[in-house]
Amino acid sequence: MPKPLPALRSAYRAWRAIGTRWADNDTYGHVNNVVYYAWFDTAVNAYLVEHGALDIRGGAVIGLVVETQCSYFSPLAFPQTVDLGLRVEHIGHSSVRYGLAVFAQGQDSAAAQGHFVHVYVDAATRKPAALPAALTQALAPLR
Amino acid sequence: MPKPLPALRSAYRAWRAIGTRWADNDTYGHVNNVVYYAWFDTAVNAYLVEHGALDIRGGAVIGLVVETQCSYFSPLAFPQTVDLGLRVEHIGHSSVRYGLAVFAQGQDSAAAQGHFVHVYVDAATRKPAALPAALTQALAPLR
Amino acid sequence: MPKPLPALRSAYRAWRAIGTRWADNDTYGHVNNVVYYAWFDTAVNAYLVEHGALDIRGGAVIGLVVETQCSYFSPLAFPQTVDLGLRVEHIGHSSVRYGLAVFAQGQDSAAAQGHFVHVYVDAATRKPAALPAALTQALAPLR
Amino acid sequence: MPKPLPALRSAYRAWRAIGTRWADNDTYGHVNNVVYYAWFDTAVNAYLVEHGALDIRGGAVIGLVVETQCSYFSPLAFPQTVDLGLRVEHIGHSSVRYGLAVFAQGQDSAAAQGHFVHVYVDAATRKPAALPAALTQALAPLR
Repeated sequence: MPKPLPALRSAYRAWRAIGTRWADNDTYGHVNNVVYYAWFDTAVNAYLVEHGALDIRGGAVIGLVVETQCSYFSPLAFPQTVDLGLRVEHIGHSSVRYGLAVFAQGQDSAAAQGHFVHVYVDAATRKPAALPAALTQALAPLR
Repeated sequence: MPKPLPALRSAYRAWRAIGTRWADNDTYGHVNNVVYYAWFDTAVNAYLVEHGALDIRGGAVIGLVVETQCSYFSPLAFPQTVDLGLRVEHIGHSSVRYGLAVFAQGQDSAAAQGHFVHVYVDAATRKPAALPAALTQALAPLR
Repeated sequence: MPKPLPALRSAYRAWRAIGTRWADNDTYGHVNNVVYYAWFDTAVNAYLVEHGALDIRGGAVIGLVVETQCSYFSPLAFPQTVDLGLRVEHIGHSSVRYGLAVFAQGQDSAAAQGHFVHVYVDAATRKPAALPAALTQALAPLR
Repeated sequence: MPKPLPALRSAYRAWRAIGTRWADNDTYGHVNNVVYYAWFDTAVNAYLVEHGALDIRGGAVIGLVVETQCSYFSPLAFPQTVDLGLRVEHIGHSSVRYGLAVFAQGQDSAAAQGHFVHVYVDAATRKPAALPAALTQALAPLR
């Protein structure tokens, strides 16, 4: 099992501070591994909504999550606030692969990092659809 | 069923801004009723940790939640940020009742409000214990 | 603060076994107070779906949660399975108040109990709507 | 991005049925991608507790999650019950890699599949520790 090295902040393009919640800690007193994916979902979708590239209720196409992955390096705990870094690692005809990393505030090396792949499909037929122009435009600064 | 009126911001004493998360929205596209309690837990415990009144791992007493309640007035949705208002409504020998309310940013009237009752017990014996001095001191500004 | 007594199983009319999940336990090693409301939501909505009284995607009316409450008596912990008891405590023109209780398997006295109030509104106008006939019929055995 | 094929039930060794919850569905009406990891955590830890290989509160070593991954093939939705399949894909000196898959009931092909890597460390020093004998014994049937 090859082990990745923690990424640095300079490898990411957009940022979102996320406050931890009481329930993020599990019985061992640290943020549970599942929670990082809730942060990934939040960082990606908030970026898209705030850049006009996601209309949750009425879009003609929707992004289905087809793969997610995360590597964990160092623990985090409530009540700290974390910084989510976001970048685009690949854009295909109907898919986007995001790279995400979680940093403790004041740290330059990631506490965890991973990826998240969206495939866009027609909201009605669920067949793969070309990425909307508003989306590719919103993603340009993340390359 | 008597219906409470939404509280105003002036009725609360301490504040915490909480960012919504993608998963907070349920299938109807609004923040699910359960999530408000995750915010209550977060606001109360973060206040206590940050005011030196809660040592999560090593305290001699622990606060058990014995009752919670929430009334919902108007919907909230990801990706908005909400303001949690906190106050103390009652302090007993071994219990504290907190009042909590959730406000949309820019709104003076609560979107939801409720309460949360902690009973303190000895961490080992689980018998009711007097509120620690550090706690009553931390709570004084919330009355 | 008057303290309710734990209800008995005989006070409830419908049942749903729910398996606890790892993340239900919080840092103190017991099921967090928030999780009970996720179980309430699950027990009410699963009952309605399975009795033909809730069409999540296409219903003409939707049930908004306007109040929830829970009293906690004794701790629960992953990996135990719990039994959710459900009853109807009040039916109005456009509202239903459910009573819910959580029992450890093999225990006759509730570990926690509370209520959950739905107000039905027109899905388009969000104005209060009469309870659909399919709903009142589904609720009859819960009185 | 090479796309894995859905696994079959015959590729897994231990099983756990998990009931979906109302909040598992996200705004698109299907189980959110994050929830699958909550199920992975539940299936692995419940297996370990129930086979005497995990003492959550008092163990001398603890398993840290260092990597998780999931590929999603077909949607699931509340209120269905799902079957979690579990197997061991690799055992090292201080690590275990589990393979997990989620099946809709009545389906032989996975709706989603992934992996989950535990590294065991000394509970006090957090340095890598050999897998306890009770653990390797509990894992034998999962190879």
